[in-house]
Amino acid sequence: MSENLVKPEDFLFGESENDALELDCGKKLYSVNIRYETYGELAPDGTNAVLIQHALSGDAHVSGKHSPDDAKPGWWDEMIGPGKHLDTNKYFVVCSNVIGGCAGSTGPRSIDPKTGKLYNLDFPVITIADMVRAQKRLMEHLKIKKWLSIVGGSMGGMQALEWASAYPDLMESVIPIATTPRLSPQAIAFDWVGRQAILADSNWKEGNYTESDPQKGLSIARMLAHITYLSDQSMANKFGRELQDASSYSFAFKRDFAVESYLEYQGQRFTERFDANSYLYITRATDYFDVSAKADGDLAKALEPVKCHFLVVSFSSDWLFPSSQSEDLVKALLKNQCEVSYCEVESSYGHDAFLLEVDTLGTMISDFLRNRLEAVHGR
Amino acid sequence: MSENLVKPEDFLFGESENDALELDCGKKLYSVNIRYETYGELAPDGTNAVLIQHALSGDAHVSGKHSPDDAKPGWWDEMIGPGKHLDTNKYFVVCSNVIGGCAGSTGPRSIDPKTGKLYNLDFPVITIADMVRAQKRLMEHLKIKKWLSIVGGSMGGMQALEWASAYPDLMESVIPIATTPRLSPQAIAFDWVGRQAILADSNWKEGNYTESDPQKGLSIARMLAHITYLSDQSMANKFGRELQDASSYSFAFKRDFAVESYLEYQGQRFTERFDANSYLYITRATDYFDVSAKADGDLAKALEPVKCHFLVVSFSSDWLFPSSQSEDLVKALLKNQCEVSYCEVESSYGHDAFLLEVDTLGTMISDFLRNRLEAVHGR
Repeated sequence: MSENLVKPEDFLFGESENDALELDCGKKLYSVNIRYETYGELAPDGTNAVLIQHALSGDAHVSGKHSPDDAKPGWWDEMIGPGKHLDTNKYFVVCSNVIGGCAGSTGPRSIDPKTGKLYNLDFPVITIADMVRAQKRLMEHLKIKKWLSIVGGSMGGMQALEWASAYPDLMESVIPIATTPRLSPQAIAFDWVGRQAILADSNWKEGNYTESDPQKGLSIARMLAHITYLSDQSMANKFGRELQDASSYSFAFKRDFAVESYLEYQGQRFTERFDANSYLYITRATDYFDVSAKADGDLAKALEPVKCHFLVVSFSSDWLFPSSQSEDLVKALLKNQCEVSYCEVESSYGHDAFLLEVDTLGTMISDFLRNRLEAVHGR
Repeated sequence: MSENLVKPEDFLFGESENDALELDCGKKLYSVNIRYETYGELAPDGTNAVLIQHALSGDAHVSGKHSPDDAKPGWWDEMIGPGKHLDTNKYFVVCSNVIGGCAGSTGPRSIDPKTGKLYNLDFPVITIADMVRAQKRLMEHLKIKKWLSIVGGSMGGMQALEWASAYPDLMESVIPIATTPRLSPQAIAFDWVGRQAILADSNWKEGNYTESDPQKGLSIARMLAHITYLSDQSMANKFGRELQDASSYSFAFKRDFAVESYLEYQGQRFTERFDANSYLYITRATDYFDVSAKADGDLAKALEPVKCHFLVVSFSSDWLFPSSQSEDLVKALLKNQCEVSYCEVESSYGHDAFLLEVDTLGTMISDFLRNRLEAVHGR
């Protein structure tokens, strides 16, 4: 059986003044690259295209491998692939790295065409809407007329909601998972503290780090965020008060507890694959996200133009984006007489459940997409 | 009307080998100072003494003022004083700063009598039991035979539980508030990240900071902890997504949101009154706290020697030490046929409710103490 191999691709736009990407901050972004991957084939009638949106630390590599030697497949490989829940024998799947990111798309560590140097903090502060505006260009490039669905968890769900709000004619359906229509002050607060850890790192150098990354600061930000991705219960199940190496306390400040060791490892590993400036920009984009802002906080009013079908999924132990926030979304959509299916999945995994409860989630997504595709074909 | 003025006092012990404080880590602490304050008078029969335990960032100054010019009274002045819920016309109230602290009692920024220099990281890692052992010396010094009650919230409640477990004959009652019989892995994880922010601060210098404190690191640790003291709901009520100064986003990384401004202020203010090394030691002491450890995690078994009456109070929106942890304690005490009153107070304030819900809490404490005092006097 042959491996499911995929090749990352690049789409460059915005070389000219007219083609540049207009941003919410009022600036323009030139020479914008979008790193993306596609899986399966676009149907001749163009009805089977599904856009996958990644979360904060994700990338365009959602399924398969780049080479048979890769240690790991894409980040949602259990969900997406030939014969899987989101079956790439049936659907044409597209996933792209967000702008502001650090996995191929233009971000703060890209070259500023004006200066020939790294942008760093000269990179404009972007929003979720800016990320979506860039993806819209990719959609045109790929000659996709309408998405069958836009699917995303966490920050990916924010992009999915923004798509529905900004381009209501360009999708049949949206599947926002473990997400929120607007970041809560608690989530903004966690982002703030994480960013302060990066800004305080003496290696950060106002964003102009060269040889030494601000690894300590980025690692602290990641460890903090990681706590918010798990639930109290899942941490108790996974670690309890277990000690890592010894049978008794060290009476020191190095890691004693298994949970400390786990966090240290997660923080360290993150610095190997993620950029500190990107972390600043992407968390700021999520802080600013409030799909209700265009109607002064009236979510139903803001979502009035939205017309597609929705499958909204939340997880019972997710305290970062709790079910009540998904329910606010569902209520607003129902008020607007949208077609909404909503499921709160019972899970102890916290926010990370959207990556872990693959079978439960996959079955729902698979059934929902089949229904949408049949509806499009008039069956 | 005269002000309720109080004078801090010092009790020094441990000058000799025999008198030194034995610690859980196996080391001894010499020349130990306990900063304390007392309010009211010890009754001739000695039955009216109440020990107040402070939380992580608290101190011995629980009520009244040191001078009429003080801007603020002690940290629980609304609760404790003449004619207040915990009436110092009736009860003799004692409050002392924990060892390891930075508000008068011996801690890492005290002089090591062996070297004549600051301890810094040569200070031994202490435990909640060590703090209590030091308070026991103060009790003897004050010639108190038995506490009518030991009252504490958060880390203060841990000390109260440790007292009941270590010296079951020395109190009539214990009032643990918004606390836990053992720190959860989630709380250990938050402590870990906070400490990493201090350790990563280039001003920390392995604990040997001199002119410049590791203020950034300490401020990050405090901001993080502060989020865990509030509830999602109280943050939404207090700040929502309000912007601080401007009517629109700054598109930068400085504070935009009211919640960011609040955290920045809290972090900054904390560095003016708290020491970074103390923060390391005190949070480590709470990590290590597990009153069930002496019975391999069997809480009821560990609490078997306990015989006093209990008033246990938790708050519905406290997610740092949630009600379920107080309920574990209550169940264990009931199993041992202890007399326990338990109340989960409905509050949106989160963990901080123990400092904010003064009237609800004060009425319960006042009634409970009156009953205990009457029982002691055989009425």
